[in-house]
Amino acid sequence: MNLVLLEAAELGADGRARLSGPRAAHLVNVLGVVPGQTVRVGVLDGARGIATVESVGGNSVLVHCVLEAEAPPPPRVDLLLAVPRPKVMRRLWAQLAALGVSRIILTNAERVERPYFDTHVLTTECYRPLLLEGLQQAKDTRLPLVSIHRQFKVLVEDELDGLSGAGLRLVADPAAATSVGDAVRDGLGSNPDTRLLLAIGPEGGWNAFELRLLEAHGFQRIGMGPRTLRTDTACLALLALAHDALTGVD
Amino acid sequence: MNLVLLEAAELGADGRARLSGPRAAHLVNVLGVVPGQTVRVGVLDGARGIATVESVGGNSVLVHCVLEAEAPPPPRVDLLLAVPRPKVMRRLWAQLAALGVSRIILTNAERVERPYFDTHVLTTECYRPLLLEGLQQAKDTRLPLVSIHRQFKVLVEDELDGLSGAGLRLVADPAAATSVGDAVRDGLGSNPDTRLLLAIGPEGGWNAFELRLLEAHGFQRIGMGPRTLRTDTACLALLALAHDALTGVD
Repeated sequence: MNLVLLEAAELGADGRARLSGPRAAHLVNVLGVVPGQTVRVGVLDGARGIATVESVGGNSVLVHCVLEAEAPPPPRVDLLLAVPRPKVMRRLWAQLAALGVSRIILTNAERVERPYFDTHVLTTECYRPLLLEGLQQAKDTRLPLVSIHRQFKVLVEDELDGLSGAGLRLVADPAAATSVGDAVRDGLGSNPDTRLLLAIGPEGGWNAFELRLLEAHGFQRIGMGPRTLRTDTACLALLALAHDALTGVD
Repeated sequence: MNLVLLEAAELGADGRARLSGPRAAHLVNVLGVVPGQTVRVGVLDGARGIATVESVGGNSVLVHCVLEAEAPPPPRVDLLLAVPRPKVMRRLWAQLAALGVSRIILTNAERVERPYFDTHVLTTECYRPLLLEGLQQAKDTRLPLVSIHRQFKVLVEDELDGLSGAGLRLVADPAAATSVGDAVRDGLGSNPDTRLLLAIGPEGGWNAFELRLLEAHGFQRIGMGPRTLRTDTACLALLALAHDALTGVD
């Protein structure tokens, strides 16, 4: 935990917050904090800052926070992901939040198995703590917005523009020769504020109809070279490449 | 499984191989192969090619292979990794092989817990099948070489040159400002065949002594921006960035 996240309601008008539960346990048992010590904090979807420990007692830690004037900007990347196997999805949540995505748009596709939609892994109770874990790892405060869509065609045709507005749209396709970096440099050259929406298909890939529909809605195909990766590996690799390319453009 | 790997000894002089066990089960039950159908094959550490199914029976599949003249080149990246938690290491094996590394050099460090060395996850019986899984996913035949080192200083001072020869050496350090891409472009500009050795520390990072020792042995620090990543996420992200940068240099 490289930053302790607070809910806005936990922070008093005097800048004090009383932490309990897992965060207090982490501060006391892992970091071994004592009064006077400082730790990095952040308010969920708000500013980051420094908290000074005022007292440690029982199962709680009292801190006094001094926050920066502004919240960090939300990550410039959104993810459109065909729902992977529950085991894989469970592992991805924290890593996606750590690498940085503003929105996680989960979708059906022909090669997504129906039962994947009915698992605990897609419930807020499961994924919210995992997303928070990723944010606290990466020192970010911006909780990714998650939406789940059972109808791919309705999503792409009617809902996607509202979820992830104007910006560069890329879809991973093993057969494509253009790299993420080249696509970002070509597509964002004139506007360094543009956002990026990255689409990653199921194991086995999008079918021809799905790929055509994505292309008809502005997605360009990008590849990752000759090595075919598992969905979760591809997801992390592409997010890393996308952020790296966006940094180069800044 | 995007390519079926054979051991050299399984391939007869007539180009035939009789597959049994999990590979046969995958061909029959997942891919549903029938005689006359072709699948991608590769000989471990050898050439790739096409196998034509000649017969399917009982628990085995007889194939006839036509291989390319040459084996694929080994990946140009080696990895020096401080041993992570067993659970994390277990997940990494297949992903490392899929992303592409020639060598996986596992090392001790101050912040590596001693029991990590005594787990099943570091035995050949555990990791070899996982590495093969990664190769079959990525359509590669080059099995990464694995070595395990309990003495960091001895490794870096006496053994590393023998394991991973001349080439660019980079060590991930959250405080560094240079990106992998820039380091690769600066360091390999004149020699596109140079290899890359990438060092990734334990959770909590290398200590000051370890970082100095690495720098004294030619490692340059590279960063990944302001987001601090878990070791396994960082590992996958950096390998993706390294391969992308090397491709750009080719």
